[in-house]
Amino acid sequence: MNTVTKKNILNTEKEIKELESLKADLYHKDFLLTWEKTDKELHSVLKIAEILKQMHNDNIDVSMFKTGLAVSNFRDNSTRTRFSFASACNLLGLAVQDLDEGKSQIAHGETVRETANMISFLTEVVGIRDDMFIGKGHTYMKEVAEALDDGYENGVLNQRPAVVNLQCDLDHPTQTMSDLLFLKNYFGGFEKLKGKKIAMTWAYSPSYGKPLSVPQGVIALMTRFGMEVELAYPEGYDLLPETLEIAKKHAKASGGSFKVSNSMEDAFKNADIVYPKSWAPYAVMEKRTKLLEQRDQNGLKELEKDCLAQNAKYDSWECDKKKMKLTKNGEAVYLHCLPADITGVSCKKGEVSADVFEKYRIGTYKEAGYKPFVIAAMIIACTKKNPSEILKAIYKKAEKRVL
Amino acid sequence: MNTVTKKNILNTEKEIKELESLKADLYHKDFLLTWEKTDKELHSVLKIAEILKQMHNDNIDVSMFKTGLAVSNFRDNSTRTRFSFASACNLLGLAVQDLDEGKSQIAHGETVRETANMISFLTEVVGIRDDMFIGKGHTYMKEVAEALDDGYENGVLNQRPAVVNLQCDLDHPTQTMSDLLFLKNYFGGFEKLKGKKIAMTWAYSPSYGKPLSVPQGVIALMTRFGMEVELAYPEGYDLLPETLEIAKKHAKASGGSFKVSNSMEDAFKNADIVYPKSWAPYAVMEKRTKLLEQRDQNGLKELEKDCLAQNAKYDSWECDKKKMKLTKNGEAVYLHCLPADITGVSCKKGEVSADVFEKYRIGTYKEAGYKPFVIAAMIIACTKKNPSEILKAIYKKAEKRVL
Amino acid sequence: MNTVTKKNILNTEKEIKELESLKADLYHKDFLLTWEKTDKELHSVLKIAEILKQMHNDNIDVSMFKTGLAVSNFRDNSTRTRFSFASACNLLGLAVQDLDEGKSQIAHGETVRETANMISFLTEVVGIRDDMFIGKGHTYMKEVAEALDDGYENGVLNQRPAVVNLQCDLDHPTQTMSDLLFLKNYFGGFEKLKGKKIAMTWAYSPSYGKPLSVPQGVIALMTRFGMEVELAYPEGYDLLPETLEIAKKHAKASGGSFKVSNSMEDAFKNADIVYPKSWAPYAVMEKRTKLLEQRDQNGLKELEKDCLAQNAKYDSWECDKKKMKLTKNGEAVYLHCLPADITGVSCKKGEVSADVFEKYRIGTYKEAGYKPFVIAAMIIACTKKNPSEILKAIYKKAEKRVL
Repeated sequence: MNTVTKKNILNTEKEIKELESLKADLYHKDFLLTWEKTDKELHSVLKIAEILKQMHNDNIDVSMFKTGLAVSNFRDNSTRTRFSFASACNLLGLAVQDLDEGKSQIAHGETVRETANMISFLTEVVGIRDDMFIGKGHTYMKEVAEALDDGYENGVLNQRPAVVNLQCDLDHPTQTMSDLLFLKNYFGGFEKLKGKKIAMTWAYSPSYGKPLSVPQGVIALMTRFGMEVELAYPEGYDLLPETLEIAKKHAKASGGSFKVSNSMEDAFKNADIVYPKSWAPYAVMEKRTKLLEQRDQNGLKELEKDCLAQNAKYDSWECDKKKMKLTKNGEAVYLHCLPADITGVSCKKGEVSADVFEKYRIGTYKEAGYKPFVIAAMIIACTKKNPSEILKAIYKKAEKRVL
Repeated sequence: MNTVTKKNILNTEKEIKELESLKADLYHKDFLLTWEKTDKELHSVLKIAEILKQMHNDNIDVSMFKTGLAVSNFRDNSTRTRFSFASACNLLGLAVQDLDEGKSQIAHGETVRETANMISFLTEVVGIRDDMFIGKGHTYMKEVAEALDDGYENGVLNQRPAVVNLQCDLDHPTQTMSDLLFLKNYFGGFEKLKGKKIAMTWAYSPSYGKPLSVPQGVIALMTRFGMEVELAYPEGYDLLPETLEIAKKHAKASGGSFKVSNSMEDAFKNADIVYPKSWAPYAVMEKRTKLLEQRDQNGLKELEKDCLAQNAKYDSWECDKKKMKLTKNGEAVYLHCLPADITGVSCKKGEVSADVFEKYRIGTYKEAGYKPFVIAAMIIACTKKNPSEILKAIYKKAEKRVL
Repeated sequence: MNTVTKKNILNTEKEIKELESLKADLYHKDFLLTWEKTDKELHSVLKIAEILKQMHNDNIDVSMFKTGLAVSNFRDNSTRTRFSFASACNLLGLAVQDLDEGKSQIAHGETVRETANMISFLTEVVGIRDDMFIGKGHTYMKEVAEALDDGYENGVLNQRPAVVNLQCDLDHPTQTMSDLLFLKNYFGGFEKLKGKKIAMTWAYSPSYGKPLSVPQGVIALMTRFGMEVELAYPEGYDLLPETLEIAKKHAKASGGSFKVSNSMEDAFKNADIVYPKSWAPYAVMEKRTKLLEQRDQNGLKELEKDCLAQNAKYDSWECDKKKMKLTKNGEAVYLHCLPADITGVSCKKGEVSADVFEKYRIGTYKEAGYKPFVIAAMIIACTKKNPSEILKAIYKKAEKRVL
């Protein structure tokens, strides 16, 4: 154990007791969207994640599956989330098996229903990433979940595998809950987040077509914790309207606030946290989905050209030293889901200047470091009737993970 | 445990005793063709499969390898069989490692001999699918098996990995034995299969080049259990002659029968079981193999065109409601190895009508659900000197697979 | 246990005691180049490898990680080394996860630093193969190692994963240490290697661009064990000069010798061991690296043409019966890292004649058979504070690997 982690040591037994008292029940459910879950359910998953992270650090073997498959279904390229999912499954004792479809092939209907069952005879979890098509990703995940219900209820499957959303067109719950855990530990508890201002802002990128799920997920989640959430983007870079409605509702319920502006500077003013990140306008993503369905290569090229030209108008939306000075004491914490487009490092001009990124680099790595444990927590919450009892037994036994 | 599976609970101890009394010996052998195995050997594998399925349902950990690799060598695309193999290996504690060759490269000679050893230093099983080339797949599997004998006998390998046929040009034993287990449980025992009529028929498909191994494997296997097997296909869609000879011989020995006709209706008449499935004529597959070897792209295109035109003549060979009415009480059980070409669902016109498929859909999923356990049983039978003793010890210990 | 391996049974307890007395410390280090390691460190890894090989043969479970990932990062095609790495990791209880980059993309800077951390939250070892670019492979491995130091020291990672070189532009330590263990057991001990003559010679191949790491690694390693190392190649086929300097220094220190000639016959004369293997001249590999960076397809084609023409001048550099007669009693042992270019088998004219290869074939397979255990030993040495204590505990417990 190194000094940094020692500082964070949890009283694991106490944590498990608190988990027990939450009495959240996600058994035989899926984890698709944070806003479908109650506060208790979210806190339950967050608590399991922290308990697992601590046990890993304390070299305790938490493998609670002796055998079992975890299906990894990535419909978009990914290295980080793929490794996070693989790490989470391995931590619990599951073996990852990739389900590779042709990237262009959008399976539906009987194909999905059948495939979902055929890959699940000995499967405990299906992790899905499907974030490129507006109106498709979340729909696909629900289709898979329904097919698994059908198979389980009809005696095809001995167990009901959990479906975990590894990023869809609406939400990116494993990312935003990792962001949240990082903030909770940075500020010293969920209570400390109340009244903190977070600026979720668009930022310039020389690429195009980045998904909307991170900003949508962030505004929907952070508003539940009493935070002052300010969303800022250039005119035309709208998110899906329904996610803004959710953020408004959550802010009202939690005593926080939710505001939308078209100025990065306004959003940064007095912010405790900044999350500058590029995304494509919702309308563009819809247009793109249609062109992809029609396999209209020329249309796609033209759209890309138009969008990059549009983006270029807003290349001043960079998180640089000057803008950081606007934040609370000039010392807001910087968040990013990585990889960031870093000016002069990974691109000529990007989302963040090199000096700002370097200052917060280790922080962003730690932010990402919660993800495997958040995923593992979702798996446990959705596949176990009584997570706290299992964790208690594991903690009592305390078998070494590594000799 | 759900109600369906409860109905099927086996007296596991009794089953293990029966396995013991079979005294079958497959140790250090491979599982390539069902017709190379004695009845005792087949029954032994089938029994192990059912014991494993029950133990999985009872949440008993059956991992009998603490470490060890399982090599997955697919020379043709596959999702279902790939997952079945991965599931089987994981169930027993083995880690799957893919052996990816270039798809076009047909390795032979020293390359096969050397590669087979290089991938096997810590390997317990090699699963191979090679079904696209007439005269090649089974030959390749035998080459691998001989190379492993050579390596084991000469002290290169500490253990002799088993070779398991996951579909070749001759047979598809993991599929047909799953079909058989489904039928056994559907009708209530192997004894009940005697005298039952099964119609293994060709069916129309808008695709071309489907392997022959399923119909060949079905007629060779079902004739051993006293069934009345009727094979039906349009003129010209012949199977490999040697597999018909085997079916004849088996029917004679078991007191069943084997008949070939050119009418789907005749075959369906009074059938207890129907298995309508498309395949390519044996002569076409031979021609195709040659064209592929010569990399004759134009020749292949022309062959495909001819074959699809030929197929189209027989698009009335669809398993529909009307034909199902010809079967025993209009209620024959429908089998398929999946995925089926379903009219109006996965294609315009196909092997089976949507209403018939939907009626039997859950059944076909359950049929497929035996496959992981059949594969695991083959691995156990071929790598263990005394499977019944190991299963007895595991059952006595009864460690939880999932906490 | 078969008769061959019985002959080689080690007194495992004695071996573990000897390992203990070596007091080598590789904990939290990486295994990149043999010449960065002390004799004690090399002997420590070699001894662990032999202990593991014996325990595997004795069916003892040596999995010392209950969970944990092993990252497999191959920047060049490989079947054999990939399987060796997978086997080694599986033996120790780790699950392999592939890190696939675009083959052409040579990642550097922030990308490497970030990716190295993102894939390592639950990772214990990163195995890297990067052998195609002079001046790049070893540099990349060091970059990854530094990124992991950074992440570990800053509390991003709970553990410091070891980096293992699975072949770079300079060295191929897992191969050469396997070669060495084969020789040690062939001749009956490290002491017996003193004074033995080994001919590391170039050999003709109809292909181009083979890496230099094997001959460089062989001359650098074998000179440490008091051997008479003779390197022979046609004029112009030079290795990296620094590796020759290392060989000279080692030969002087160990009481062996190191000589360079331009005659295969001279090198074979009175040799106890021959290692005839093709490689590309160092200057060509440098030129090739530049052309690849510039994506100069025409330049690459021309270079290949020139090189193959150059190679063709030396097609008499074949290890045949006649040349083998020049060796000690005509019975030198033949080594190869496999696959060899075998005349009349895998090519028209190649590195070795078919009769010579066949005579030594099983030996080369056994030579390769040490590799999984050498890799596993490197992982143990670099991730465990006290390997001998762990091995002692495992040996005492002696749990069955396979029931």
